[in-house]
Amino acid sequence: MDLVDSLLSGNRRALARLITQIENDLPVARNVLATLYMRAGRAHLVGVTGAPGTGKSTLVNELARAFRQSGRTVAIIAIDPTSPFTGGAILGDRIRMRDLSGDSGVFIRSMATRGSLGGLARATADVATALDAAGFDVVLIETVGAGQSEVDIAQLAHTVLVVEAPGLGDDVQAIKAGILEIADVLVVNKADQPNADITVRALRGMLALSQPESGARPTPICETVATEGKGIAELAAAIDDHRSHLNASGGMIERTRARIRRQIETMLREQLYARFISRNGGHAELDAAVEAVMDRRVDPYSAVEEMIK
Amino acid sequence: MDLVDSLLSGNRRALARLITQIENDLPVARNVLATLYMRAGRAHLVGVTGAPGTGKSTLVNELARAFRQSGRTVAIIAIDPTSPFTGGAILGDRIRMRDLSGDSGVFIRSMATRGSLGGLARATADVATALDAAGFDVVLIETVGAGQSEVDIAQLAHTVLVVEAPGLGDDVQAIKAGILEIADVLVVNKADQPNADITVRALRGMLALSQPESGARPTPICETVATEGKGIAELAAAIDDHRSHLNASGGMIERTRARIRRQIETMLREQLYARFISRNGGHAELDAAVEAVMDRRVDPYSAVEEMIK
Repeated sequence: MDLVDSLLSGNRRALARLITQIENDLPVARNVLATLYMRAGRAHLVGVTGAPGTGKSTLVNELARAFRQSGRTVAIIAIDPTSPFTGGAILGDRIRMRDLSGDSGVFIRSMATRGSLGGLARATADVATALDAAGFDVVLIETVGAGQSEVDIAQLAHTVLVVEAPGLGDDVQAIKAGILEIADVLVVNKADQPNADITVRALRGMLALSQPESGARPTPICETVATEGKGIAELAAAIDDHRSHLNASGGMIERTRARIRRQIETMLREQLYARFISRNGGHAELDAAVEAVMDRRVDPYSAVEEMIK
Repeated sequence: MDLVDSLLSGNRRALARLITQIENDLPVARNVLATLYMRAGRAHLVGVTGAPGTGKSTLVNELARAFRQSGRTVAIIAIDPTSPFTGGAILGDRIRMRDLSGDSGVFIRSMATRGSLGGLARATADVATALDAAGFDVVLIETVGAGQSEVDIAQLAHTVLVVEAPGLGDDVQAIKAGILEIADVLVVNKADQPNADITVRALRGMLALSQPESGARPTPICETVATEGKGIAELAAAIDDHRSHLNASGGMIERTRARIRRQIETMLREQLYARFISRNGGHAELDAAVEAVMDRRVDPYSAVEEMIK
């Protein structure tokens, strides 16, 4: 377990190598992760999500800087949707590196979707485990999008930030309604823009409508201008507050339990399938079923039942 | 098979009822879908995706109108990310209904994510099958987002439209690079805005760089102003052209085969898991594994191996 030891002793190249193995779903990564898992559980996982154009990347960089100033080490996982089919995200890494490079207390890694449903969520969970075991105090998980990716983050992170910006178009308003449900902290970035107060007021109004649980903790709204570092300290404090709240209320244990259940379910699904398909004749059977459905000799639902029987 | 007959004879309430059953993953839907599947395969499935603020919904409405004018019936599935946890999308439906209501050749349905990985993709595929069997000539599948949802659409639709708009912020440029790969037709909506020509030129430049296959069909770029109906007829023609191209080149068969394979794989995964967990003691075993991992008595990878053994 050479890799485990170097990783635990702070070797960044060992960490980078393991993440590549996780991304490529190599069996060797599983063994290392099994050992690392027992050492993890200390890091604060923070998800950061929001539509394109909200300035998330700059915000994440500034947050990392703020956490570093309070003496904590920070890892950033940037889930990069740029290239669902070929991977990518090198440009983003370079821009970030320029800002935060030379600080060994910061580790940055971009991950691209590989086109497999659920694959990215699983890989991100595993990378978070590795960064946690490697001793990072805060793991920032940044994603772009509206929909499934937010759900995945909500299920993975302890604290979820949803980033908004003033005046991003008509659809945004509609998206907010759902995204409020997963936000532990709301951020209005670019708060120096003319319409920022309208955005803040709109969010406040929607929060008032959407928090039916009496006694639920009100979702804080933080205003930031990430490009100037404004409001970042307050945002970092709001993130810490949320963690304290989770610890005090038992919410941390519930989130962890839900996350573990989901992780086990996902792995069970994948491995049951892998065993089914790699058994004698599984591949040929799948190919035959595809052709039978192509020719409309059978519908896909019956074809699957037939295979499983 | 009452529902099947009413559905095939054009009963819209029967169709709406089946879609609700599909959304709720009721077993009865499977039986109906099995029958409907054998009647499907005639509709042109068109995916429409793009970031919030590009004006997709208006564009989809106008496209529907254009296809109606050429005598075709149109169904719209709006994948709505507004509420990943509780479902929703009623507002969107109302706005659309006002525009296209009173035309029995149009059917509109919003679907929200339910928080289960892969669940929405499967449900969307099933709803598309139902609409196809019900006789709609064109099925427009609209989604918002950047990342996984685009991949799902690409895998489901015959023709994928990626909608851009001028000046949507810094992240947009980065996203385009990956999204170009899944676009069969690029649309620059809001083409009357000042910077529209810059967006068109940027896309053209990126296309020139990103099409390495010699002999590959160049991706058309359509400029539209959906709110004024401008460029819509040309866009509808580009969509039809793409279908003709797929039919002539054999691409249609390849896309259909890939889609069927993915659908069968997804169903196999889900059903293998369902059988495993619903067998004697499966639930209790899962609960025990979750608690063991919670207490760090075992890592999740080993826990899953133990369960499967």
